[in-house]
Amino acid sequence: MLETIFARRSIRRYQDKPVEKEKIELLLQAAMAAPSAMNFKPWEFVVVTDPQRLKEIRNALTFGKHNAPAAISVCGNLSFYKNTKANRFWVQDCSAATENIMLAAVELGLGTVWLGVHPIHNYIKRISRILHFPEHVIPLNVIYVGYPAEEKPARTQYSPDRVHWETYERNF
Amino acid sequence: MLETIFARRSIRRYQDKPVEKEKIELLLQAAMAAPSAMNFKPWEFVVVTDPQRLKEIRNALTFGKHNAPAAISVCGNLSFYKNTKANRFWVQDCSAATENIMLAAVELGLGTVWLGVHPIHNYIKRISRILHFPEHVIPLNVIYVGYPAEEKPARTQYSPDRVHWETYERNF
Repeated sequence: MLETIFARRSIRRYQDKPVEKEKIELLLQAAMAAPSAMNFKPWEFVVVTDPQRLKEIRNALTFGKHNAPAAISVCGNLSFYKNTKANRFWVQDCSAATENIMLAAVELGLGTVWLGVHPIHNYIKRISRILHFPEHVIPLNVIYVGYPAEEKPARTQYSPDRVHWETYERNF
Repeated sequence: MLETIFARRSIRRYQDKPVEKEKIELLLQAAMAAPSAMNFKPWEFVVVTDPQRLKEIRNALTFGKHNAPAAISVCGNLSFYKNTKANRFWVQDCSAATENIMLAAVELGLGTVWLGVHPIHNYIKRISRILHFPEHVIPLNVIYVGYPAEEKPARTQYSPDRVHWETYERNF
């Protein structure tokens, strides 16, 4: 598992090979095992495999020009929240779900890359138009998914100067 | 690995047994293997094991009354960003790092629970005071860590009505 965490790298070149629907469903089972504030589960997911629509997504996102055969947009549905303050946590909840997708992908032999959408206003507008989101559904990101056509070594970017002990001014 | 993702549950009862510093360091190695927007790595971590300080944290957080022997506060350091827009992604980056901590913990026999801090203004103020954060370091959360004293079955909360196919209005 730690190996899986270290093996997850951003993959930007993909094989010309579709991703099995069963594997996509496993990714989404992993996503929906994430924790969420007050168990509100604000997430929704749109899976895209249509080549024309993938092309529209590539055109919409400056850093999303890669040739993945599938994409998952992780979104927050703000209408699930009634009279609570839990919606202040939708970005965190959907980010945890996204990380689960990326780690599950490693285990299934798939590569992924996370393309940020929220809070970039123009990206939100474009992706919402392409994927037909109603106004209360906000795309957090687009995750490209596919069989990798590049290999990257496992790693952590651990840096001891980012770690503090008991209080911020003391080293670990 | 999928088993690990499903086995991660919020643990709120802990054994009276300290967490080895080596294990804490592994959790942080996992955290810093997370993806971050433009590889900006905005994260910092404060590890707390001092009983008096843990008590102060328990008092500060309404949903954080549990008896964990250790806590990690995952924070964003906004001063790492110079003239870029990448700081709009610090919450997502730090949330992915947090999920890595929680999954690595499962593998090490540890339990965790995620206590949201940002964007609750009062919680940010209290945790920043207890852990001595400068103004440009924002606590996203406090993660309690310890050996579990409760068992919860593995699960996903997968729900097919949260999954859409090609566009939002079509089912998977």
